[in-house]
Amino acid sequence: MARMIGVLGGMGPLASVDFFHKVVSLTPASNDQEHIPMIIYSVPQIPDRTPAILGTGESPFPGMLEGLRALERAGVDAIAIPCNTAHFWLESLRKEALDGLHFIHIVEETVKVLISEKVVGANIGLLATVGTLKSGIYEQGLKAQGFNYLIPDENEQADLVMGGIKAVKAGDVPKGASLLSKAAHKLKARGAKRIIMGCTEIPIALANAEDLKDILLDPTKILAEACIAYSKSKN
Amino acid sequence: MARMIGVLGGMGPLASVDFFHKVVSLTPASNDQEHIPMIIYSVPQIPDRTPAILGTGESPFPGMLEGLRALERAGVDAIAIPCNTAHFWLESLRKEALDGLHFIHIVEETVKVLISEKVVGANIGLLATVGTLKSGIYEQGLKAQGFNYLIPDENEQADLVMGGIKAVKAGDVPKGASLLSKAAHKLKARGAKRIIMGCTEIPIALANAEDLKDILLDPTKILAEACIAYSKSKN
Repeated sequence: MARMIGVLGGMGPLASVDFFHKVVSLTPASNDQEHIPMIIYSVPQIPDRTPAILGTGESPFPGMLEGLRALERAGVDAIAIPCNTAHFWLESLRKEALDGLHFIHIVEETVKVLISEKVVGANIGLLATVGTLKSGIYEQGLKAQGFNYLIPDENEQADLVMGGIKAVKAGDVPKGASLLSKAAHKLKARGAKRIIMGCTEIPIALANAEDLKDILLDPTKILAEACIAYSKSKN
Repeated sequence: MARMIGVLGGMGPLASVDFFHKVVSLTPASNDQEHIPMIIYSVPQIPDRTPAILGTGESPFPGMLEGLRALERAGVDAIAIPCNTAHFWLESLRKEALDGLHFIHIVEETVKVLISEKVVGANIGLLATVGTLKSGIYEQGLKAQGFNYLIPDENEQADLVMGGIKAVKAGDVPKGASLLSKAAHKLKARGAKRIIMGCTEIPIALANAEDLKDILLDPTKILAEACIAYSKSKN
């Protein structure tokens, strides 16, 4: 049987739906049985990641660890987390995991795609939560591979990016789309060659942004493709 | 904390995505934490339900039981199954379950909605797999409450209903929509007051069927609403 993917989700829940949908729709299959086996732990009560990184909120780590344990007991072979910000705790989680459990890392997989596109040295824009920016996960990953790292200024970050992400989390996708699209256009005007939608709420809002589709990169989709490849690879 | 819903899914995987999406989008919430906790077991390798009921294929019951055990170990409070046909095995599954585990039954919830709509005595059409028809789960549930039960004739069932469901499972949603819409119109012409989309692939295909929206009843949505209500009710 294909390897079982464990999804540590609920951060947020709509992002987990989007990820699950991408996995199913990107899997080449002509019947149910050719799809990959997954267990999705979607517990949105895990505390918010950004305030924790900024030192103003409770840590999500105990909740993430509880999710990891539930997925381990259920017998998964690999863990994927459809929340960019949560990857700040990925190394700590890996240290607690059972021997041999594989982690599919959203930042590493995204950087691999950029390398394959042969845009090394180019300006790569990042739209992400304040928590993800502060954590440095994309900044370090990109700079280590020779990319220039470009982010919105402080006002754009607060009003357009965080405002847009919050709108999506509250269910107002059109408002989120409008704010996030403005933020992406600002980065494009500043010379971004590619823009990473580095928060799983962003691809939900910008799914139909035709004017940006050649520049936007979707880590949720990249993570989904990496999970399918891992599940279908030989043990 | 809200009660944890365990989803025995993967039958098929796109139906599980649709169910998960409906739960999240129907939950009144202004942030992640107000959403309900869920664990989704999506293992599409569970053998197909219809051939098993017809006596021509392997039973899905051992696979369903394995999923139940994984969800029990993960600590869920209730089980929902976004696959109508699989409810043929629900009573057997309930007998194997841990004491106190609650089951939210897609047929019972759908019949409750019909009762609340005060259409008792009316013709209720059913679009479902051959397995679901043969199992009698909807037929018994509807007749016990005084509804008339209406199904497609044998050719319509084979060509339009099963053909449409198979198209959705293989990813061809437009083809599925075209076939299933024809089947629904036939039942409407024969006097159906309401038509139950009694296979979780059907609402995916007929999501945008404007000409049928006043007559179609979506058990996936009804199950999602019942799960939200159960999760948010007091322990």
